[in-house]
Amino acid sequence: MKILLIGASGTLGKAVAAELGARHEIVRASRKGADVQVDIAKVDSIRAMFAQVGRVDAVACAAGKVVFAPLSELSQDQFAVGLNDKLMGQVSLVLLGQAQVRDGGSFTLISGVLSRDPIRAGASASMVNGAIDAFVRSAALELPRGLRINSVSPTLFEESAAAYGPFFRGFKPVPVAHAALAFSRSIEGAQTGQTYIVE
Amino acid sequence: MKILLIGASGTLGKAVAAELGARHEIVRASRKGADVQVDIAKVDSIRAMFAQVGRVDAVACAAGKVVFAPLSELSQDQFAVGLNDKLMGQVSLVLLGQAQVRDGGSFTLISGVLSRDPIRAGASASMVNGAIDAFVRSAALELPRGLRINSVSPTLFEESAAAYGPFFRGFKPVPVAHAALAFSRSIEGAQTGQTYIVE
Repeated sequence: MKILLIGASGTLGKAVAAELGARHEIVRASRKGADVQVDIAKVDSIRAMFAQVGRVDAVACAAGKVVFAPLSELSQDQFAVGLNDKLMGQVSLVLLGQAQVRDGGSFTLISGVLSRDPIRAGASASMVNGAIDAFVRSAALELPRGLRINSVSPTLFEESAAAYGPFFRGFKPVPVAHAALAFSRSIEGAQTGQTYIVE
Repeated sequence: MKILLIGASGTLGKAVAAELGARHEIVRASRKGADVQVDIAKVDSIRAMFAQVGRVDAVACAAGKVVFAPLSELSQDQFAVGLNDKLMGQVSLVLLGQAQVRDGGSFTLISGVLSRDPIRAGASASMVNGAIDAFVRSAALELPRGLRINSVSPTLFEESAAAYGPFFRGFKPVPVAHAALAFSRSIEGAQTGQTYIVE
């Protein structure tokens, strides 16, 4: 398979590339420094990426920005970051990428634990993750040509615990490689409309 | 209690007013023709509403627009309608309304069945409803002064079946009065962070 991996240079993206790279061709996309440059918050940037990469068998996303801040301080503009980037950025990958994914191919989006287990300062992330999982369930009904779509919803990664652990006190971190397995399940399996919980 | 009810002139809003009006003072808000005019997609309109209404014990929302269209036809602008109106409109009610709700008061938002049971042409609605329920779970952790927040997630109403039934084949409709009971449970009960499923 030829797999387009967005967010390839991050902690999760690298793990996904490591898991799938031995068996498949990975085209790495990210904001900078990868095979292809893309900013998923910009529709034109997504269009340019697909024009450059051409036909693929799978699109996998390990990228998406949201702002963490106390609810009392979260502004409309800060909510808009999550809605434009992690949510509509990934939705745009599906809307614009459909035509580039071969029959029976797949989309795998990234959501996260906060939709089900909220934390302080995480209202925007909770909202966006809940939106992604629900979008995936719905889009699975309508994608043409046997195209599939799933999301991966991981808890805190061991590899990120130093940076984000203080927000997630008491959460049991998992190796990022476990989330990479969920990407493999989505891309190499046959299910659609699923959210793979990794925790 | 003094309850500010947004979307008061719709099918659901009227049922909520009928359920709660006998025991409480209802301030009706809607796009036009109610006690107070408001367009929840506009932050300035929400601000003006709260300035006019003053302190309340509860804010209940039975309003919110989303576009229904096949996934292959749904444009970014059509997704934006749901994100700006039903999603961020209701989130803005919470962000801007907090200061106007008395200690121990509540917010009750409206989501819907499509986050868990998707239909064709409902991808935007699924996304928005999933986002609202997840936001409610998270915001409940951070609201000050004992303020509570819940969502009501109903299936198709018997009263709307003539209009929307063709989208919801095989869904068992419920009387809108059942959804009004869920608003009562949220406003007059003690729980927070809940989604009341009505089906």
